[in-house]
Amino acid sequence: MNNMVTGRRKVGLWLIGARGGIATCVALGLSALRRGLIDSTGLVTALPEFQKLGLVPWGDWVLGGHEIRSTHLLDEAQDFARTNRTFDSEFVESLRSELEDVETRIRPGTVSGASPIITGLTGPEVPKNESPGEAVTRIRDDLESFRRKNELDHVVVVNVASTEPPVDAEKFPTRYDEFEAQLQRSPEGWLPPSALYAIAAMQAGCSYVNFTPSLGCNLPALDELARLQKVAYMGCDGKTGETLLKTVLAPMFRARNLRVLSWVGHNIFGNLDGKILDTPSHKQSKVATKDRVLAEILGYKPATVVTIEYLEDLGDWKTAWDHVHFSGFLGVPMVLQVIWQGCDSILAAPLVLDLARLTERAVRSGHVGLMPFLACFFKSPHGTKEHDFGKQFAQLMSWVDGLIAGGG
Amino acid sequence: MNNMVTGRRKVGLWLIGARGGIATCVALGLSALRRGLIDSTGLVTALPEFQKLGLVPWGDWVLGGHEIRSTHLLDEAQDFARTNRTFDSEFVESLRSELEDVETRIRPGTVSGASPIITGLTGPEVPKNESPGEAVTRIRDDLESFRRKNELDHVVVVNVASTEPPVDAEKFPTRYDEFEAQLQRSPEGWLPPSALYAIAAMQAGCSYVNFTPSLGCNLPALDELARLQKVAYMGCDGKTGETLLKTVLAPMFRARNLRVLSWVGHNIFGNLDGKILDTPSHKQSKVATKDRVLAEILGYKPATVVTIEYLEDLGDWKTAWDHVHFSGFLGVPMVLQVIWQGCDSILAAPLVLDLARLTERAVRSGHVGLMPFLACFFKSPHGTKEHDFGKQFAQLMSWVDGLIAGGG
Amino acid sequence: MNNMVTGRRKVGLWLIGARGGIATCVALGLSALRRGLIDSTGLVTALPEFQKLGLVPWGDWVLGGHEIRSTHLLDEAQDFARTNRTFDSEFVESLRSELEDVETRIRPGTVSGASPIITGLTGPEVPKNESPGEAVTRIRDDLESFRRKNELDHVVVVNVASTEPPVDAEKFPTRYDEFEAQLQRSPEGWLPPSALYAIAAMQAGCSYVNFTPSLGCNLPALDELARLQKVAYMGCDGKTGETLLKTVLAPMFRARNLRVLSWVGHNIFGNLDGKILDTPSHKQSKVATKDRVLAEILGYKPATVVTIEYLEDLGDWKTAWDHVHFSGFLGVPMVLQVIWQGCDSILAAPLVLDLARLTERAVRSGHVGLMPFLACFFKSPHGTKEHDFGKQFAQLMSWVDGLIAGGG
Amino acid sequence: MNNMVTGRRKVGLWLIGARGGIATCVALGLSALRRGLIDSTGLVTALPEFQKLGLVPWGDWVLGGHEIRSTHLLDEAQDFARTNRTFDSEFVESLRSELEDVETRIRPGTVSGASPIITGLTGPEVPKNESPGEAVTRIRDDLESFRRKNELDHVVVVNVASTEPPVDAEKFPTRYDEFEAQLQRSPEGWLPPSALYAIAAMQAGCSYVNFTPSLGCNLPALDELARLQKVAYMGCDGKTGETLLKTVLAPMFRARNLRVLSWVGHNIFGNLDGKILDTPSHKQSKVATKDRVLAEILGYKPATVVTIEYLEDLGDWKTAWDHVHFSGFLGVPMVLQVIWQGCDSILAAPLVLDLARLTERAVRSGHVGLMPFLACFFKSPHGTKEHDFGKQFAQLMSWVDGLIAGGG
Ligand SMILES: NC(=O)c1ccc[n+]([C@@H]2O[C@H](COP(=O)([O-])OP(=O)(O)OC[C@H]3O[C@@H](n4cnc5c(N)ncnc54)[C@H](O)[C@@H]3O)[C@@H](O)[C@H]2O)c1
Ligand SMILES: NC(=O)c1ccc[n+]([C@@H]2O[C@H](COP(=O)([O-])OP(=O)(O)OC[C@H]3O[C@@H](n4cnc5c(N)ncnc54)[C@H](O)[C@@H]3O)[C@@H](O)[C@H]2O)c1
Ligand SMILES: NC(=O)c1ccc[n+]([C@@H]2O[C@H](COP(=O)([O-])OP(=O)(O)OC[C@H]3O[C@@H](n4cnc5c(N)ncnc54)[C@H](O)[C@@H]3O)[C@@H](O)[C@H]2O)c1
Ligand SMILES: NC(=O)c1ccc[n+]([C@@H]2O[C@H](COP(=O)([O-])OP(=O)(O)OC[C@H]3O[C@@H](n4cnc5c(N)ncnc54)[C@H](O)[C@@H]3O)[C@@H](O)[C@H]2O)c1
Ligand code: NA
Ligand code: NA
Repeated sequence: MNNMVTGRRKVGLWLIGARGGIATCVALGLSALRRGLIDSTGLVTALPEFQKLGLVPWGDWVLGGHEIRSTHLLDEAQDFARTNRTFDSEFVESLRSELEDVETRIRPGTVSGASPIITGLTGPEVPKNESPGEAVTRIRDDLESFRRKNELDHVVVVNVASTEPPVDAEKFPTRYDEFEAQLQRSPEGWLPPSALYAIAAMQAGCSYVNFTPSLGCNLPALDELARLQKVAYMGCDGKTGETLLKTVLAPMFRARNLRVLSWVGHNIFGNLDGKILDTPSHKQSKVATKDRVLAEILGYKPATVVTIEYLEDLGDWKTAWDHVHFSGFLGVPMVLQVIWQGCDSILAAPLVLDLARLTERAVRSGHVGLMPFLACFFKSPHGTKEHDFGKQFAQLMSWVDGLIAGGG
Repeated sequence: MNNMVTGRRKVGLWLIGARGGIATCVALGLSALRRGLIDSTGLVTALPEFQKLGLVPWGDWVLGGHEIRSTHLLDEAQDFARTNRTFDSEFVESLRSELEDVETRIRPGTVSGASPIITGLTGPEVPKNESPGEAVTRIRDDLESFRRKNELDHVVVVNVASTEPPVDAEKFPTRYDEFEAQLQRSPEGWLPPSALYAIAAMQAGCSYVNFTPSLGCNLPALDELARLQKVAYMGCDGKTGETLLKTVLAPMFRARNLRVLSWVGHNIFGNLDGKILDTPSHKQSKVATKDRVLAEILGYKPATVVTIEYLEDLGDWKTAWDHVHFSGFLGVPMVLQVIWQGCDSILAAPLVLDLARLTERAVRSGHVGLMPFLACFFKSPHGTKEHDFGKQFAQLMSWVDGLIAGGG
Repeated sequence: MNNMVTGRRKVGLWLIGARGGIATCVALGLSALRRGLIDSTGLVTALPEFQKLGLVPWGDWVLGGHEIRSTHLLDEAQDFARTNRTFDSEFVESLRSELEDVETRIRPGTVSGASPIITGLTGPEVPKNESPGEAVTRIRDDLESFRRKNELDHVVVVNVASTEPPVDAEKFPTRYDEFEAQLQRSPEGWLPPSALYAIAAMQAGCSYVNFTPSLGCNLPALDELARLQKVAYMGCDGKTGETLLKTVLAPMFRARNLRVLSWVGHNIFGNLDGKILDTPSHKQSKVATKDRVLAEILGYKPATVVTIEYLEDLGDWKTAWDHVHFSGFLGVPMVLQVIWQGCDSILAAPLVLDLARLTERAVRSGHVGLMPFLACFFKSPHGTKEHDFGKQFAQLMSWVDGLIAGGG
Repeated sequence: MNNMVTGRRKVGLWLIGARGGIATCVALGLSALRRGLIDSTGLVTALPEFQKLGLVPWGDWVLGGHEIRSTHLLDEAQDFARTNRTFDSEFVESLRSELEDVETRIRPGTVSGASPIITGLTGPEVPKNESPGEAVTRIRDDLESFRRKNELDHVVVVNVASTEPPVDAEKFPTRYDEFEAQLQRSPEGWLPPSALYAIAAMQAGCSYVNFTPSLGCNLPALDELARLQKVAYMGCDGKTGETLLKTVLAPMFRARNLRVLSWVGHNIFGNLDGKILDTPSHKQSKVATKDRVLAEILGYKPATVVTIEYLEDLGDWKTAWDHVHFSGFLGVPMVLQVIWQGCDSILAAPLVLDLARLTERAVRSGHVGLMPFLACFFKSPHGTKEHDFGKQFAQLMSWVDGLIAGGG
């Protein structure tokens, strides 16, 4: 490719769930960044620490993705603006041509192995009754064609599709050859979509990042595949709001030896993600990732309550109330309360862009497989038990400094 | 001293403000720890990380101090319990003999150079119109006698007296010999009490820790004195509540590149400290230390408001409401609110004990002068611009690990 | 009775759940009022408006009750003080003889028809397998003996026992003769304890107030019984915290024509009541009464979430977070949030005393049957759809003013 | 006028401060109501209770006003939408012709007697150095010409101009003839603008409502003038946010006999009103009206703190934190906290429309002078000490019911 010659890279970001809330904000944001309409607030990789890392500039990213709902990115963006009063409809309108361009690169996704509430969302263009093998082949072809047509040096696939119900990862073969063999002969339902996308991505030579609590790449066989294919991967579940706060505040209680008696977190919001999570089986995945962090930071398990409730009127405005009851010196109980009013997709979108840039950079430096240095982006970071946000960020900085120092 | 032989050390903790809220809780806590009546919640040095450091056990500390109000530690403790409902009067009663014992080691303090609201508190036993030179001599004698009588290996003086109005530190000589000469011939008012105590402490070979925002040891001439006397010192202003939270939360905004538009912090409480701080000149010292941290962590100065209001009915229950208005990706504004309901003296007391133990350990290891590795305990740590609590704690851990590794 | 001659009345307050949190605070409070140890804060009937009503003074009330747990009032009071830091153990100790006196008038209750979690609490003195008829007879005998022995002019029975699961009230005969006949021949389980106590109370000529959401007196047949017996009754579910706030705040939104989009209320607490309510069937009764009020005040049903979670460490400190999302002029959405930190039994106890005094006064004035003028004390006031607290209080005032004016 | 014949009235609403935040929302709202673009949320007079009152429909109101800043209503509306994200710029654009029409009826106001911060806002069209007499004459002429040109049956003037510093009302003559004589010969500065507008309005036969805490019509001489001129008037200071909540919540504490120990209210916002109020002399007017209500409802004065701080980034989003520390039965202290996030002008604008409709209706029914039945709209209602919002609303309802019943 000629960019090898010029030294300039052209790279792809492929979103699973390409017309969802996060994806819409990614598309708007990437377009606006290119057009210079917004500053870099919210983007971690825009911090001074990352400036010597040689990250691919926003102008050199091509966006595409898979989606199962028959809607339009532009309509989603207008709806988002109207519902959440985040920005003006004029702003969205000014990015019309960019969004229509991205729209041409959105392909029908797969619901092979999805739960009924998800299959209920699909438009007619999405294949019914795909076997796992068929789905992987089709998805992989889409990814390869995306890379070829756009002459991309590397593609990072990020899963921002609806959360799936939990899956027992133990039941799958841990060696990739056995796993692949079983995949080819199994009927629909053997694997959830998030894992099918992960396999297809890796087979196509793409890196894969799981921003959701779904299964995705969290299987030993896929770790082997990633190494075989020399791609990078990481997950899971983007850390954007209440859990971010937990992993920032809990270390304080730990460092001051204040004993957390109970930590209650009530979350309310009303976007499509919330609607899906309102289905008990789906909610279970999320509550689990939100609840786990405390015990691992504190070293003991305080009483906890975590709820996530869907209230349509709140739209993307995730509001969380955390009540921390803790005990201090001489056994005196005290209280810390936190109220978080964040716009969920707006918090997530820049992290997706950051993850894409950092993953591409890791691959370029020769990194293969799991990327635990990206832990600070995730509620349940694979490959590490470190949940303290400050320490996770320090680990990211070490990696960055290493690359800069080593010229990697 | 024979403890040199046995390897066991006996050490002193001398509190300026020895019958105040914090001092009362220190006395109660130290007594209860010795008697095994409470666990170590709230004590940083009780964390596993510190266990190999060879800190002096609670049983080997002797407590004394200076105070200007004619009251009794036991009455203060009973009042504290009743007003704040922190523990039962029975509990206080069960520690009566310990408190009465401490009481015998409390000496009249000095109000030389104090503001009218402070001198208004004094009992008849406190000398009037002491010159700086007289005050230093008297205080030093008290400290030397405390050490001698109790056969102490080292004494750590901690200032937990009422906050003084701000002082212009520029006006004092920076060389100790000039400073000392001027001190001897100056009339009352040249130096505030906190600095007189610091000088006396260092002259007596004691280390000095300033837990308040008063001037204390924060003068170049005193740095020289500390080195001459081979003692350690650190300050200022214990970080126990709202500011602790600020230095825990602000790094999160920084690391996520979220732009803080404004940070409002309203504090209400009703103890004697609050009453003194309600005097505008005194309040100024505190507001300054509370406000500064944000700009230094964030790298820019957001709009800020900090208030501290005295409401007698709240007693020691410092309640703080923080409202953080910040901007995210695509310019979307969001809000984080924090409500802190902490019992101020209960939060402070264990840190005073920790500081005493760590200071004694530093001196024992040969450390002389400023102790910036203790920054995590202070709102305005001398000798460092690092306000990120996580990083400050990591620095403390490095020092600890260094000592353990080096056998220092 | 000779008090007829002197014009002075001696009256009884009989609590179902006589060693529970509320009952304990009633016993402490009544004793302390008599001894002049506390002022009248929290007592509605101590307001100036009630002073000409001729209410029976605290000194003329005799306290007794039924209970199923084998514990002691004094121990419960000490536990309460220790767990909740509401008052000093010394204070409880100073009321020892009064509490021991009340203890002598506590009789074994009935668990005929109770759920397993309740029967699991019983001590050996509580009869097993009582039929409804047996239970009513035994309870009635206890009440009659209480009245006779203490020479009481009237007895008010207040149900402050644990909440029972909901019961379908439709299934019971509406005529009292049929109801009584069926009661006599039915096996255990036909009626829950709260209703058995109500029947026994009325049969014994006592008035009955249901402070809980349990069935109690809420049956047409019991209305007939009350009229036959010339006693008064009212219920249900004391309005003390979050619901009180709802019925104070919702009228504001209504009067300003602000549209409530959603109202979320999360309650956390950790006393025995909370433990029982943590059983899903029991919780249902409570959530229903908490949720209903909004639609009736607003005139439409906003989206609502109500949770009640048991967290042992919170004890009696019921903390509630309410998040109200509402829409104003030009469709602009806004938010009100309320955080309530109340000590549940302390809020309830004075209302129990008020209800006893007002009920006795109503009966004395010749009132028979339902007392809808007491609606302001209840979450689900029988016989009225008025939930606006201000209007309910105005109705109470009308009744009071009528009595004062009429000399009734 | 021919509308006498048809029975249909055409009426005027004249705003002082006609391009301010509230006025802008009034103009947008009135236009949108006429065009059927919004529903009636936020309008008290749209409640069912008012439907038989024969209020003048929105289509029959003509809007005009005085303003001192050289800006345009349309620009203000666009700025408002952008800053506060309350509605889309498209929405404002769709009302362009209506806003331009109102713009033609906005006249230069007076700054005679205004403070420097206000005169600093004026454009060149505003006369400098007007004497009180000149100002009144000019304003009156504007009002008369407005009425004549638009053939209006009645005009209601509502003051929504910036808050003025407090004025000592005692120093003015109480008889109107003396007052008028002194006005004519006094130099600039004798009276603040709000009072000059009130006099001019009354002289022109217009009713006057003071939505601000400025002096306005609050003078005995003006009461006489209103009666002479047969116009109605009322004030002062619209009750829209934190104070509304206080007057809703304080009656609850009173009715439950819970003792408020302290009530702290911190307000933050960032619109022009906030900027003016940030000047200490101006702020004083507002804090006074916000603070007074509690003592009058509770019957005693709890400790209070009220702050209003200007933070530009918050725009019209007035956020208030109220912390209420209260004591219950047995002396147990508890806490209620309230967080209000309201868009100030959006809350105020419909009340201005309501006040105009109700005032016109009062005048039509023959009412002259003060209108205390409108107390529920004001923080400091003239002519009444009733601050309980529920009772104030009941008083409004009595007046409404009386009119409906009496056919007035
Ligand atoms: N702050 C955050 O928003 C945040 C943080 C952490 C994790 N997450 C997770 O990120 C995901 C996306 O969040 P969102 O708010 O954008 O949700 P969303 O519901 O708006 O978008 C999800 C999109 O995925 C699509 N989709 C569902 N199944 C698919 C499939 N099998 N193939 C292709 N597309 C599919 C849906 O049609 C929808 O458009 C969720 O799983 C959420 O839990 C979000
Ligand atoms: N969480 C906290 O409590 C906290 C945190 C940081 C800093 N501080 C600071 O610690 C100090 C102590 O707090 P506190 O709550 O114990 O206050 P306090 O008012 O209860 O106690 C201060 C004591 O100092 C005494 N005193 C005043 N001037 C003196 C003098 N010149 N010599 C000797 N004694 C003197 C007073 O009589 C009083 O007994 C204050 O300056 C406070 O601002 C407290
Ligand atoms: N603020 C409040 O506390 C409040 C408000 C409204 C309603 N309530 C209701 O009041 C009731 C009492 O509350 P509490 O906090 O005192 O609870 P609690 O659990 O402390 O006390 C209830 C007592 O009832 C006893 N009991 C249970 N079943 C019984 C039976 N069949 N016969 C006799 N005794 C029985 C239990 O042993 C216990 O001692 C609960 O139903 C609660 O839901 C309380
Ligand atoms: N919820 C609320 O917004 C609320 C509630 C109660 C009271 N108020 C009061 O209402 C008033 C208006 O509030 P706002 O938010 O619209 O403020 P604003 O500052 O946006 O508008 C005030 C307008 O008055 C104009 N003005 C100032 N002096 C004038 C004069 N002498 N003649 C003519 N115009 C003049 C200013 O130029 C400005 O356009 C303020 O006094 C405010 O305190 C507002
Ligand atoms: Na989202
Ligand atoms: Na303190």
